[in-house]
Amino acid sequence: MKNIAILGSTGSIGTQALEVIRNNKDDFNIVALAVNTNIYKLLEQIKEFKPKIIAVYDEDKAKKLKEILPNNINIEIYWGMEGLKAIASLEEVDILITALVGMIGLIPTLEAINKGKTIALANKETLVTAGSLVMKKAKEKGVNIIPVDSEHSAIFQCLNGEDNKSIEKLILTASGGPFRNKTKEELLTVTKNEALKHPNWSMGKKITIDSATLMNKGLEVIEARWLFDIDGDNIDVLVHPQSIIHSMVQFKDSSVIAQLGNPDMKLPIQYALSYPNRIYSNFERLDLVKISSLTFEKPDMDTFPCLKLAYESLKNGGTYPTVLNAANEVLVSEFLNDNIKFYDIPLYIEKALEKHSCVNNPTLEEILYVDNWSREFIKEIVK
Amino acid sequence: MKNIAILGSTGSIGTQALEVIRNNKDDFNIVALAVNTNIYKLLEQIKEFKPKIIAVYDEDKAKKLKEILPNNINIEIYWGMEGLKAIASLEEVDILITALVGMIGLIPTLEAINKGKTIALANKETLVTAGSLVMKKAKEKGVNIIPVDSEHSAIFQCLNGEDNKSIEKLILTASGGPFRNKTKEELLTVTKNEALKHPNWSMGKKITIDSATLMNKGLEVIEARWLFDIDGDNIDVLVHPQSIIHSMVQFKDSSVIAQLGNPDMKLPIQYALSYPNRIYSNFERLDLVKISSLTFEKPDMDTFPCLKLAYESLKNGGTYPTVLNAANEVLVSEFLNDNIKFYDIPLYIEKALEKHSCVNNPTLEEILYVDNWSREFIKEIVK
Repeated sequence: MKNIAILGSTGSIGTQALEVIRNNKDDFNIVALAVNTNIYKLLEQIKEFKPKIIAVYDEDKAKKLKEILPNNINIEIYWGMEGLKAIASLEEVDILITALVGMIGLIPTLEAINKGKTIALANKETLVTAGSLVMKKAKEKGVNIIPVDSEHSAIFQCLNGEDNKSIEKLILTASGGPFRNKTKEELLTVTKNEALKHPNWSMGKKITIDSATLMNKGLEVIEARWLFDIDGDNIDVLVHPQSIIHSMVQFKDSSVIAQLGNPDMKLPIQYALSYPNRIYSNFERLDLVKISSLTFEKPDMDTFPCLKLAYESLKNGGTYPTVLNAANEVLVSEFLNDNIKFYDIPLYIEKALEKHSCVNNPTLEEILYVDNWSREFIKEIVK
Repeated sequence: MKNIAILGSTGSIGTQALEVIRNNKDDFNIVALAVNTNIYKLLEQIKEFKPKIIAVYDEDKAKKLKEILPNNINIEIYWGMEGLKAIASLEEVDILITALVGMIGLIPTLEAINKGKTIALANKETLVTAGSLVMKKAKEKGVNIIPVDSEHSAIFQCLNGEDNKSIEKLILTASGGPFRNKTKEELLTVTKNEALKHPNWSMGKKITIDSATLMNKGLEVIEARWLFDIDGDNIDVLVHPQSIIHSMVQFKDSSVIAQLGNPDMKLPIQYALSYPNRIYSNFERLDLVKISSLTFEKPDMDTFPCLKLAYESLKNGGTYPTVLNAANEVLVSEFLNDNIKFYDIPLYIEKALEKHSCVNNPTLEEILYVDNWSREFIKEIVK
């Protein structure tokens, strides 16, 4: 029986993780849950999964939850970053699922690593913004960081029993998002509702917009660089509209190992929890006869400049990825609020990258400073 | 440095194995070669690879080789089944590549297993005809049997680091051969030259005809059953005309792992020799953008009854697969000699299967007896 805590239990990954845990009660036990603001959904989860401790990032919401909590429920409630850190460092937790959206996941993740917890990492921004720092700490503490992203889970599975030194290339597949094959001109006027219609995956809003700009794939390239300790030049992106091959590893003998499945986040979530074992699931089985054809294309980095910006930030190193990520977080939020247009996202990110003074081998404080600088810079432009 | 012996060094697999060894002289060293009859090609190989011992199955050819061998070459020459056994049991051999075509490979393979040699198995008939016996002996002696067939090598690679108990299904891919999408009527009149034109793979004649009838896939299903200890009901065949995905494993959590590559036998040969490591190769890298599309179909067992006969033989067990294999060997040879038509192959195999008295849990002697019975039965029909 593994004891699990979830940061971000009411989001898309969090609720799917709870579904996996609900179906495998003999294997997994929830001890703690943390959310950003959604206390009503959290209350339902508390009733079902009976965690001992919870945290709500938003202090007002935490206090509100205290008020509405039924008398017969005895539970500790924390809030703020201290609350998230408390959940992340709980003595009895074996695996921490980090499924908060954005940069907010970084500090609690570092805290959990410090305490030797296995990390099921669904918060890619953590590695994008501070990969060097996080992986160094994980190595120091002998902590396993198991990816939950379908692409990285695929690579992680393909590397089972293999020597990392045999890797020649990682091949991240990309659906191409809702705007694949659209021209630059057509993309000038797309709306947020069009961008939110992902062809294959059901995900949160932030990542769905990132999929439309291909920034999601760019962030994944940076994440893969840190997770698997591979140079960015050896990480390829391959557009594969059906999202059946979730990613691949090419080895130095030319052999390619791939992981396939229907697009369902529950599989990589379950694998991260059951690793190194596999446990039975009732997920729909892959039917390649029905799917009939898998196709592949080159990504179009001219039409989707976010991917190019991500590769460049990785190559430039230091705090470039931090700026990229922070600027993107703010811009996606502004796009979702109808304050900017689709192509303003790469345009403004590029401005932030150009303007910023890079710090090489940044400390946590420097990363937090640059992250904040980037957000303020973007807010100033958008205003 | 691993010391290698090859049974069948002048055949398709044998010459490709020597090509791999030529390109990796620091890793592999040839100590012995054995052939069926082709002494002229063997002589060239002797000059290049300088084995200490060789064997020629055909006694007259062995004596002829002695005559034509240059004086400055000092080498032991053996012949007959005793010769093959001598090569297979050589003290200094680490890996024996069994690349003889057909049933003839069985006894030397058993001999090598007895002596604790690692087997790089390219002779699928060995496992088809006597899988239970061979695998039991290998287990007893703690011997690794590493498949060289591209499909089984793919599965072997997909199972790296995985627990065999997690397997739900093996998925063997099949190109469909030169006659995919042909109707039964069209196949009534196909010639051996049409059957010898494989769309993707360059292989020996026996296996190329087997690919045209789909018997090759049937034999592979039986081989997989023994290699991976999986019930035949859990081995699927999937037609995949591009031969890029070489095979797949579906696990009980629904995840599918696949191995991909260009159709080139040198990769599985090299992997069998380098296992558990991977070594650099200069083989052409997979280019999925160029390939553009991978397609999948159900196999048509009505039009290609050999595949159905193989599944049925596996299900019936005992000496059924022995009869299937022996009858098929004779019939392919008769087809190559223009003595029978394409559909006579499954027709006569079915007759042999119906006629034979099954022996359950057969001994080696019983297998050899039934094998011989099946050959004689077929020869009688064809006469």
